[in-house]
Amino acid sequence: MAEGIPNPNEDLTTFYQVLPAAIVAKMQRIKLVVLDVDGTLTDGAIIYNDTSREYKNFNCKDGMGVSLLIKAGIEVALLTGRYSHLTTRRAADMLIEHVIQGERNKEEALQRLMQQLNVTDDELAVVGDDINDMPLFQHAAVSGCPLDGYHFMQTQATVHLTRNGGNGAVREFADLILMAKGLMTPEGDAKFLRERGLSFAHTRQ
Amino acid sequence: MAEGIPNPNEDLTTFYQVLPAAIVAKMQRIKLVVLDVDGTLTDGAIIYNDTSREYKNFNCKDGMGVSLLIKAGIEVALLTGRYSHLTTRRAADMLIEHVIQGERNKEEALQRLMQQLNVTDDELAVVGDDINDMPLFQHAAVSGCPLDGYHFMQTQATVHLTRNGGNGAVREFADLILMAKGLMTPEGDAKFLRERGLSFAHTRQ
Amino acid sequence: MAEGIPNPNEDLTTFYQVLPAAIVAKMQRIKLVVLDVDGTLTDGAIIYNDTSREYKNFNCKDGMGVSLLIKAGIEVALLTGRYSHLTTRRAADMLIEHVIQGERNKEEALQRLMQQLNVTDDELAVVGDDINDMPLFQHAAVSGCPLDGYHFMQTQATVHLTRNGGNGAVREFADLILMAKGLMTPEGDAKFLRERGLSFAHTRQ
Amino acid sequence: MAEGIPNPNEDLTTFYQVLPAAIVAKMQRIKLVVLDVDGTLTDGAIIYNDTSREYKNFNCKDGMGVSLLIKAGIEVALLTGRYSHLTTRRAADMLIEHVIQGERNKEEALQRLMQQLNVTDDELAVVGDDINDMPLFQHAAVSGCPLDGYHFMQTQATVHLTRNGGNGAVREFADLILMAKGLMTPEGDAKFLRERGLSFAHTRQ
Repeated sequence: MAEGIPNPNEDLTTFYQVLPAAIVAKMQRIKLVVLDVDGTLTDGAIIYNDTSREYKNFNCKDGMGVSLLIKAGIEVALLTGRYSHLTTRRAADMLIEHVIQGERNKEEALQRLMQQLNVTDDELAVVGDDINDMPLFQHAAVSGCPLDGYHFMQTQATVHLTRNGGNGAVREFADLILMAKGLMTPEGDAKFLRERGLSFAHTRQ
Repeated sequence: MAEGIPNPNEDLTTFYQVLPAAIVAKMQRIKLVVLDVDGTLTDGAIIYNDTSREYKNFNCKDGMGVSLLIKAGIEVALLTGRYSHLTTRRAADMLIEHVIQGERNKEEALQRLMQQLNVTDDELAVVGDDINDMPLFQHAAVSGCPLDGYHFMQTQATVHLTRNGGNGAVREFADLILMAKGLMTPEGDAKFLRERGLSFAHTRQ
Repeated sequence: MAEGIPNPNEDLTTFYQVLPAAIVAKMQRIKLVVLDVDGTLTDGAIIYNDTSREYKNFNCKDGMGVSLLIKAGIEVALLTGRYSHLTTRRAADMLIEHVIQGERNKEEALQRLMQQLNVTDDELAVVGDDINDMPLFQHAAVSGCPLDGYHFMQTQATVHLTRNGGNGAVREFADLILMAKGLMTPEGDAKFLRERGLSFAHTRQ
Repeated sequence: MAEGIPNPNEDLTTFYQVLPAAIVAKMQRIKLVVLDVDGTLTDGAIIYNDTSREYKNFNCKDGMGVSLLIKAGIEVALLTGRYSHLTTRRAADMLIEHVIQGERNKEEALQRLMQQLNVTDDELAVVGDDINDMPLFQHAAVSGCPLDGYHFMQTQATVHLTRNGGNGAVREFADLILMAKGLMTPEGDAKFLRERGLSFAHTRQ
C-alpha cells in the first residue's frame, strides 16, 4: 500500500465521523460525484420576488469541497430535475463541466453521463436529499444524504452526513472521499495541494 | 380493512411522531388541505429591498409534500390575507389550483371554496401559524401548527408539527395524512407513486 | 382593579417568561413603544447585491405584534440611525406612523418625538440590540433586548427577551405589554380584538 | 501599567471567553486587522438569482465591531480572493479604506499592504474561515476562526471564536482586541467612546 493511503480494511477516523472500512474501500474507487442541487448544494430555500425572479443560497464551504474534488481529478456533475439559470452560473463558478437540468428522467440522464465519462456504478458517488433522488442512489457505490435530508433518504444512504444541505454537507462528502483516497488528512489538511503545487488562484469557491 | 391502510382505532407510529388513533381516523377522511403562506409555507421572513421589491423563502421539501398530496388526489389550497404575486408563482410551481389572497374575510373565503369543491368540515385540514388563522382552525377536522408557530395556535392545533414553517412543517403535515391513508409507509416511502406508476417528471418541487 | 387586568403587585406568569411585579406595573403605564430596526426588527442581516441594492429580513410574527399594539391604541415608532427606503416601506405595511431614520443624534430625535406625542419617560418603552441604542434605554421605563442582542445591552435591559431579533423578539415585547395591560391572556389569546370587534382585514403583518 | 489596561501577564476573563495571558499580550500590540469576507464577514451564503445578480449576507453587529476598531485607531482591511462589487459597497459602509479583492496571490497582497502601512507580523491579526486563508494565518501574531469555520482552520487559529461567520465572529474578535487594549470593559462597555467624546453619528454599521 502506498504511503499515506488509508488501509481499506480498517475504519477511518475523521474529524467528521468514523468511516467504516467497507465505505473507505468503496470511496477509494470513486471517479464521479453527482450532486443534486436544491436541499443538497443549497439549504432548500426557493426564494421568489414579486417580479418572478428566483434565488438560491449556495455556500462557499461547499464550493471549496467541489473545487478540491476537481483539483484531485475527480469528475463532478450537477443533476437536477429543475431548470434554473442560476444553477448554471454557480456550476461555472465551481468549474463544474457537467450540468444536467430539467431532465424528465434523472436516471436515464445519469446513465448517459456515466457512459460518456466511461464510469461504472462502482465508480459513482451521489449526494441527494429527497425521494426524487432515489433512482440515482440505486446506481451509486456510495450515496450521501445531508443531516437535514428527508428521513427516508437517510435510511437509504451509505453515508449519513453530519452537516446540512447548503451548509457543508457537500464539503463533508468531498472531504471524506479525499480522506479515503489519502489526499487529505483526517484533520482536513488538503496535503495534495502542496504536494502537487496547486493553489486557489483563479478559483471562486 | 384494505391491506396497507392503518387501523383507525390504533395509534400510528411515524418517523415524525406518534399519531393518536383519533387523529388517524380524522386524517383518513381529509379531501382538502388549506395552507397559510407566511410562517407556514415560508419561514416568516418578509424581505424587502430598497426599490420596493418583496421576497419570500419557500422550501423544496415542503413543495414535495404538496406535490405528493396532489398526486394522491387530495385538493390543496393557499389562503392568505396578504396579496403577493410571488405566492401566485410559487403556487403555480407546485401545481396548486386554488390560491386565495388578499381576502378581507378569510373565513368567508374558506367557506366559498369548500362549497365550490363540495367539501365538508369533516374533510378539511388546515395548517396555520398565527392568530389570524384561528377562524380557519375552527372549521377544520384536523389543524396543524409549525413547531415555531405562535404559542396560542399550538394550544389550539390538533397536530403539533415537529418542523418549522418553511422548513418542512407542511411536508410533515402532508406526509402524516398520506401515512394515515396508507399511501406512504411510516418511514416515508411514498409507495403509492410506484403502485400507480407516477413519476416526478414535469414537477417543480 | 378592573376585571382581567393583572395585579401590578404580583409577578405575571406568561408563556414566554415570568414578569416581575415591578415590570408589570411599569408596563401598564406604557403609551409609546420605540423600536430599533437592524438586529431588533430584523435578524441583523445587511444583504447587498452587486448592483447596490440593499435588503432586510423582517418577520410576519413581529409585524403581528406591532399591529396588535397599534390596535390597542399604543403608539409605535421606529428610530434608527441608518436611512433605508425599505424601512419606510415595512413601516407602512405595519401602519406605523412615526419613522425616524438617519438622525445624527438618536436621543434628540427621541425627545422631540416624545414631546410631540406628549409622552413622558414613565410612558416610554424601547427595544434595541446594540450599544448605539444606549441613549434610548436611558429614557425608557421599560427596555427590552432580543435574545441574540449584544451582551452589554442585555445587562442594561429591563426585560430579557427569549426570542431573537427579527424572529419574534418584538412580538414578545408587544405581547408582554398587552398581557400586563390585561388585553391578552398569558397564553397569548388577544381577547381585546373580540371584545372590541376588531379584525385583521386590511392589515399586512 | 496605565490604569484600565489589562495585565499582559494574566488571563483576561471576558463575557465571550477567557483569553490566555499570552494572547492578551499579543493583542495589545495589534495595529492591523485583516478580514476574509465569505464565511467570515458573511455566513458563507453565495446567493444567486436567475439574472446573474449576486448577493451576500453581512451583519450589523459585525459592522459595529469594525467601526469600533476604526474609531480606536486600528487599521482594518478586507482581503478576499473573490472580486465582488458588493464587498466594495459593504466596506464603504464600514469606512474600511483597505479592500483587496481578486488577488491571485493573497499572501503577496497581504505583504504589500503591511509594507504600505508599515506593519510587522507582530502587529497583524487575521480572521479567516477556510483553507485558502492559511497563508494569511502564517503571518499573523493573532489569528481567529469563526465557530462554524472549517475544522482544520480551527486547529490552526490562535483564538477560537464563539460566534459564527456573519453572525458576530468579527464583532467578537474586534471586542477581544479592544478589551485586551483596555478600551472596552470585559462586559462589552466601549468606554473609550465616552472618554474620547466619540459618537455613532455618520456611521452605518
